[in-house]
Amino acid sequence: MAVTLLAMFKRPYGGEDAMDEFMRRYREEHLPLISLVPGLRSTIVGPVSGHYAGDDIVLATRMEFDDRAALDAGMASDEMRAAGRNLREIAPGLLTLVALDEAAE
Amino acid sequence: MAVTLLAMFKRPYGGEDAMDEFMRRYREEHLPLISLVPGLRSTIVGPVSGHYAGDDIVLATRMEFDDRAALDAGMASDEMRAAGRNLREIAPGLLTLVALDEAAE
Repeated sequence: MAVTLLAMFKRPYGGEDAMDEFMRRYREEHLPLISLVPGLRSTIVGPVSGHYAGDDIVLATRMEFDDRAALDAGMASDEMRAAGRNLREIAPGLLTLVALDEAAE
Repeated sequence: MAVTLLAMFKRPYGGEDAMDEFMRRYREEHLPLISLVPGLRSTIVGPVSGHYAGDDIVLATRMEFDDRAALDAGMASDEMRAAGRNLREIAPGLLTLVALDEAAE
């Protein structure tokens, strides 16, 4: 069964400039690093366009792997470690990262 | 362009019993209410199967609408209001709800 890695980012401190800088570096630096992760099948980037309840999330990205073994291998890879280091630089403290076993209702 | 409504739930207080009760009521009460929302194209339920960083999210559900107008109409519907009332009962304070403009990388 396919497994989804869901990355959610809270709004960076520092107003609109900080937000623009985060999105620019996410696209220019982080996504190219993520694209190198072995076993990654697809990446769907979702900028938040409306907020209804709870935390001030500004971006949610879905990364799909073929199965749990592929996800585990991807998470343990040097490429993912490099992507993680990049995130700690461009979005310190803003990330929530979970694996989902998704199923259609 | 399709628009995704992403609902994320933090872990309920009260240990495993509270978690089981939340998931049971989410599936038995909430999802049937959500299925009545006009304009909803699909619902993908994603229990968290692994946690790597940040908040203790236990469930992320994606609800897809055809476009922004369909989402806005769905959010304003009596059916969504009923689903919202149900959530305030079964998951008070645990929900983050945002709209995403998703695009494949």
